[in-house]
Amino acid sequence: MELNLFNILDILGTVAFAISGALAAMDRRLDLFGIFIIAFVTAIGGGTLRDTLIGNTPVTWMENTIYIYLIGVVTILAIIFRNQIFYLKKSLFLFDTIGLGIFTITGVEIGLQNNLAAIICVALGAMTGTFGGVIRDILCNEIPVIFRKEIYATACILGGLVFIIMHSLSVPRDIIYLTTTLIVIAIRLAVVKWHISLPYFYISNNQKPD
Amino acid sequence: MELNLFNILDILGTVAFAISGALAAMDRRLDLFGIFIIAFVTAIGGGTLRDTLIGNTPVTWMENTIYIYLIGVVTILAIIFRNQIFYLKKSLFLFDTIGLGIFTITGVEIGLQNNLAAIICVALGAMTGTFGGVIRDILCNEIPVIFRKEIYATACILGGLVFIIMHSLSVPRDIIYLTTTLIVIAIRLAVVKWHISLPYFYISNNQKPD
Amino acid sequence: MELNLFNILDILGTVAFAISGALAAMDRRLDLFGIFIIAFVTAIGGGTLRDTLIGNTPVTWMENTIYIYLIGVVTILAIIFRNQIFYLKKSLFLFDTIGLGIFTITGVEIGLQNNLAAIICVALGAMTGTFGGVIRDILCNEIPVIFRKEIYATACILGGLVFIIMHSLSVPRDIIYLTTTLIVIAIRLAVVKWHISLPYFYISNNQKPD
Repeated sequence: MELNLFNILDILGTVAFAISGALAAMDRRLDLFGIFIIAFVTAIGGGTLRDTLIGNTPVTWMENTIYIYLIGVVTILAIIFRNQIFYLKKSLFLFDTIGLGIFTITGVEIGLQNNLAAIICVALGAMTGTFGGVIRDILCNEIPVIFRKEIYATACILGGLVFIIMHSLSVPRDIIYLTTTLIVIAIRLAVVKWHISLPYFYISNNQKPD
Repeated sequence: MELNLFNILDILGTVAFAISGALAAMDRRLDLFGIFIIAFVTAIGGGTLRDTLIGNTPVTWMENTIYIYLIGVVTILAIIFRNQIFYLKKSLFLFDTIGLGIFTITGVEIGLQNNLAAIICVALGAMTGTFGGVIRDILCNEIPVIFRKEIYATACILGGLVFIIMHSLSVPRDIIYLTTTLIVIAIRLAVVKWHISLPYFYISNNQKPD
Repeated sequence: MELNLFNILDILGTVAFAISGALAAMDRRLDLFGIFIIAFVTAIGGGTLRDTLIGNTPVTWMENTIYIYLIGVVTILAIIFRNQIFYLKKSLFLFDTIGLGIFTITGVEIGLQNNLAAIICVALGAMTGTFGGVIRDILCNEIPVIFRKEIYATACILGGLVFIIMHSLSVPRDIIYLTTTLIVIAIRLAVVKWHISLPYFYISNNQKPD
């Protein structure tokens, strides 16, 4: 595994999601092993779905042991320093957002490397970015983050679209990675700060007699 | 993508499930993006599971962009005409049933094309037909349709068996497709209309002391 | 399919998980078809996840029809003899534990055959052993067994580690299979009998103001 920006981002995203998983598990009062499982599943979930749908098997974390060791170490640190983590919900939100931004971009990149159409790469980016958090929330018995009021996957899709546009303009890859990751993170932070929400479409009650 | 009956059915099934997903999401009052996600996942769920288990990767909707555009357009139309859809639950049931019938048959067909044993093709058809609806219901926090009183997957299995029998009798493919799709749809409609149910097997209480 | 110890264990694990699935479904009062679905999904779940992540597709139960017939027969027997099964919860626990022990070991073995790193084989064993039970519990609307108080996946991991150590010491395969399967089963039985539990890590309340 060489140390280019793509790999560094992938590792940072794994670390961020592992921390968010460990925090969620401790918040749910799971035991030691439950904490490791949730951290692991949250960190590898998005990439595993991406690799499986593309047919890139054995999936990445099986080919490269760095992921499993990294998640183990990060989880132990999260447990040790759990009481130094003030404002748990805010920390969880922050690490989840960082992981979301980074994994969206790795998903789009892997899609392009597999010669998939631009719109499919955006969808793949959104699935890679969100899936880890969705199964973390399902396993912790929370309403999945994707369906709460915050605009969650929308941030991934906008970031993915910017990635595709910059790619078609031949912008250097490292600049694309950093810009689009920051766009996803910035959108999510802005949405939560200013309570931006997407429109709802209700079905009028009087036309729903059953 | 050439325009044969198989492809036309596949597109109709995708449309039907996308509508059922969009209706379910609006009924649950999800926001604009939630509606698209549920429509997308419901429409591609069955085919994605089928392709992944067979090893037909990248999965179909990644190779062919028509699916993602189609689901997008259908979802927009479902949102625009939501108040023209009288009797929501009945519409949802109807589109779900059409999708169920069609996807069962595409699942069996893909199984045969991959030289799988007849009984495996039937199982694959049932999984392809039901999986989209199951994840739609899980994500919308409903009891999955497969476990409600209606005989749901049983219709798929009976349709799949008829497919295999007609196939062994060398009936032309297009006739098989139409006949078996209609059989699945007819069984499900009949079951709901006449409240047919399968037997239950209770474990006697006095033998369950723990 | 030749009859070596690996294949015999694989079949025994399938039978054990099919019974546990059928019992759980009857306990939830699902109908005839629901019982078959849960038995099938519980029995093939772990192996299907293992095969999909490795890229061993079409997955094993598609290539070899013995699994689907076996699960069908076992489920019918479980239904017929349901009232002879005294102490349902204990029987369910016992068959679940046998399946857990066996599938952990087949998961590790398949990982080694695919030249995966030792720690990845242990993780793959744990996922193979636990996944069937997890989806059984999710579909039956129970809290997944993996997150209850009993040390569930920990038993798999310890068994997997012993497998890897014996493998590096060149112990004959059949001895490894039997020893490690029994270790997983013994750990789980011991844990439940003596109420052993792993430590929890609470986050102090006064530091969680949000």
